[in-house]
Amino acid sequence: MLSAQIIKELQAIVGNKNITTDKADRICYSYDATQQSFLPEVILHPGSTEEISQIMRLANRAKIPVFPRGAGSGFSGGSLPTKGGIVLCTERLDQILLIDEENLIAMVEPGVVTEKFQQAVEKLGLFYPPDPASLKFSTLGGNVAECAGGPRCVKYGVTKDFIIGLEVVTPTGDVITTGGPTMKGVVGYDLTKLLCGSEGTLGIITRIVIKLLPLPEAKKTMLVLFNSIDGAAEAVSAITKAKIIPTTLEFMDGKTIDCVRQATDLAVPEGAEAVLIIEVDGDREFLDKQVTRISGIIQPLGVIETRIAATPEESEALWQIRRSVSASLRKVNPDKYNEDICVPRSKVPEMIRKVDAISEKYGIPIVNFGHAGDGNIHVNIMINKKQPGDEEKAEKAIEEVFKGALELGGTMSGEHGVGIAKAAYIPLEISPQTAFYMKTIKQALDPNNILNPGKIFLD
Amino acid sequence: MLSAQIIKELQAIVGNKNITTDKADRICYSYDATQQSFLPEVILHPGSTEEISQIMRLANRAKIPVFPRGAGSGFSGGSLPTKGGIVLCTERLDQILLIDEENLIAMVEPGVVTEKFQQAVEKLGLFYPPDPASLKFSTLGGNVAECAGGPRCVKYGVTKDFIIGLEVVTPTGDVITTGGPTMKGVVGYDLTKLLCGSEGTLGIITRIVIKLLPLPEAKKTMLVLFNSIDGAAEAVSAITKAKIIPTTLEFMDGKTIDCVRQATDLAVPEGAEAVLIIEVDGDREFLDKQVTRISGIIQPLGVIETRIAATPEESEALWQIRRSVSASLRKVNPDKYNEDICVPRSKVPEMIRKVDAISEKYGIPIVNFGHAGDGNIHVNIMINKKQPGDEEKAEKAIEEVFKGALELGGTMSGEHGVGIAKAAYIPLEISPQTAFYMKTIKQALDPNNILNPGKIFLD
Repeated sequence: MLSAQIIKELQAIVGNKNITTDKADRICYSYDATQQSFLPEVILHPGSTEEISQIMRLANRAKIPVFPRGAGSGFSGGSLPTKGGIVLCTERLDQILLIDEENLIAMVEPGVVTEKFQQAVEKLGLFYPPDPASLKFSTLGGNVAECAGGPRCVKYGVTKDFIIGLEVVTPTGDVITTGGPTMKGVVGYDLTKLLCGSEGTLGIITRIVIKLLPLPEAKKTMLVLFNSIDGAAEAVSAITKAKIIPTTLEFMDGKTIDCVRQATDLAVPEGAEAVLIIEVDGDREFLDKQVTRISGIIQPLGVIETRIAATPEESEALWQIRRSVSASLRKVNPDKYNEDICVPRSKVPEMIRKVDAISEKYGIPIVNFGHAGDGNIHVNIMINKKQPGDEEKAEKAIEEVFKGALELGGTMSGEHGVGIAKAAYIPLEISPQTAFYMKTIKQALDPNNILNPGKIFLD
Repeated sequence: MLSAQIIKELQAIVGNKNITTDKADRICYSYDATQQSFLPEVILHPGSTEEISQIMRLANRAKIPVFPRGAGSGFSGGSLPTKGGIVLCTERLDQILLIDEENLIAMVEPGVVTEKFQQAVEKLGLFYPPDPASLKFSTLGGNVAECAGGPRCVKYGVTKDFIIGLEVVTPTGDVITTGGPTMKGVVGYDLTKLLCGSEGTLGIITRIVIKLLPLPEAKKTMLVLFNSIDGAAEAVSAITKAKIIPTTLEFMDGKTIDCVRQATDLAVPEGAEAVLIIEVDGDREFLDKQVTRISGIIQPLGVIETRIAATPEESEALWQIRRSVSASLRKVNPDKYNEDICVPRSKVPEMIRKVDAISEKYGIPIVNFGHAGDGNIHVNIMINKKQPGDEEKAEKAIEEVFKGALELGGTMSGEHGVGIAKAAYIPLEISPQTAFYMKTIKQALDPNNILNPGKIFLD
């Protein structure tokens, strides 16, 4: 338990209004999207880098665990206060500090909600591509800490590809800056990219310098129905092999279609076993040519129907179908293990077959959708926790899914991170030598292991 | 001095043919492109990861400094054996192991020459954009270690943006793998990007997984002559502000033009004070439109003449002019300090004015050219070392150039790295706290400080 003296010191740092030890508040901050819960001892809402620095100095001195938190929307437990201590919220640091049209860069605080930022830059004809499904509530700080992805990453890359500088409070309370507003920079180690995706274990992000792109002139969305899952998966390979990289190449399997059929007014003919949502963007005149080329390539692979959105509203309606997936899955079973393996693109058909076999073996439904264009498949293992034995089966199935992905040269997580959800599986993917190298870095930078301890690696 | 016993052990690891202590050989490996020289004690040419691992285990045990070396073409002394010891050459690891058209990835050994790799992938309709000026001889391992750039990086990004996985021998001799063949991956820290640009101080790269792009259908090159340096610099800003990102946006100032005028048969009218070489690539039909748009934007900024290459040969001739720059500068003065500052794009005009003022202040010619599109200017301070006082003046001028770039939010190096050339200036750019964070990582991973010691940070 934190002493009254420590609480008093924390209060002095952030001010009375920005600290709470009230149980109801602590319960609110005990969750994230994994639905697991760990009760913290105190919630802090610092208002500046300097306050965060002071908190970390105190926490390091007194050896109090600190758990940084954006919107708490992560799928791997990255922000869960697994060891009590302090939950440090970045919500108050929510300013867009700069959008520089001449240099195509922006500077923001970590608490800015991703969608709000995207809208702000798009108003100026600029573009921030990373689009995690959580973008309406997740924060840029959280996106950077987890290296968030999204459908558009197949063409544009993931969060880290757009982060060129950071201000960070280290585990011992120093304030450091990494990178900066230039497009190139090779002075010293690239701490920016090391910190991206480090899941809040190596520092607390307090400022972010972002590289922007010009907003593409136009986009074109097509929804393609296939008569087999193999056909759709092979279409992904065929498009890549034809040297085309669409903006998005989203995939839904037959079970996903069943779910969204009920959740939306999507009219899907019988026999449709898979859907691809393909979007291209760029110069307006060029798009029709690209759509025609893609259609020609995939047509022989069992296409039942191709719908091309003629207006932005029609495009939005097609995306609405994709976005309704996650919620609609509860129809299959009430509880969901949401994994996000990634394999080399050409291995998607083989991976889907593996997942189907695992589903059959354990007799539990597994629903697949996701970013097939970069091989990042969301494998949703649907169970009923009230059903005895379901959880055990799900855990065995998950391990087999991970092993299956790794056998194909893949990874256990393309977007969600390790957190606590996958920490136990780390030895499947990372060799003891590589893990040692990573842990050596963590131990050196956080000698008292106070910053988000127990994440990525089990203690 | 290395003992006979150590030499014998090293011989046993790499074989008689792949070790030399001969003085003439040692002199050959004592240099790099900085023209500084430090004599190593032994040169090793290992043929496998396993041999490199054994060398590192031995070196770590016996505390012998090891200096990894690709082609030795670096401009910052990154490969110089500043403390004697072992020069470890990666020349024999020169195989392209895989080019995977379906997944748009390649796997190579570090000793593959960059141009050779580019040609191999282009034959298959694929594209590896980073194009350092040294590409005809520099190796991919060296490119990764220094995070090399080049003209095309303005559109496509630098070396690290294309490196998705590595096999690395650590300073203590472990073999680790980072990243892999998937487009996304967030399991553990991103060691790949940490190692890119770490100048061979955190590990020896033994295998590289590279992300490729489809080769653009066509390209179009234009050479534009301006009547003032400000006009050209403002053209760069105007193009960016118009949300156009060309493939290259290369810049030469008036002094550079004078040099190349003599070295090539370039017919440049009197009054041409700056040149931009602008290239666009992509869909063939789209290129004419882009060239017209760019011409329209820059025309009011003092354009004397625009030459558009009609054929690949004409394009090559325009690039030949750019490539002749470096060698032709010796006409101004025999000795060159080649710096590569980078500023936010819009600050290029201001930076050029600062450099001109510094040149005037010290009475030494400074010739500017480079990658204006991303603000990365090669500032060439031309002196005659035989002229008393020239070196001292150059050193003062360099420090002022660095300070000038930093005042504009820039960096001392966009491409060349720190090595020994800029190590003394590190405190100008990196705060003590940030340097401490970096050094903590280095010390933890290389406790005996044997891998490329004294680079980036002065010991």
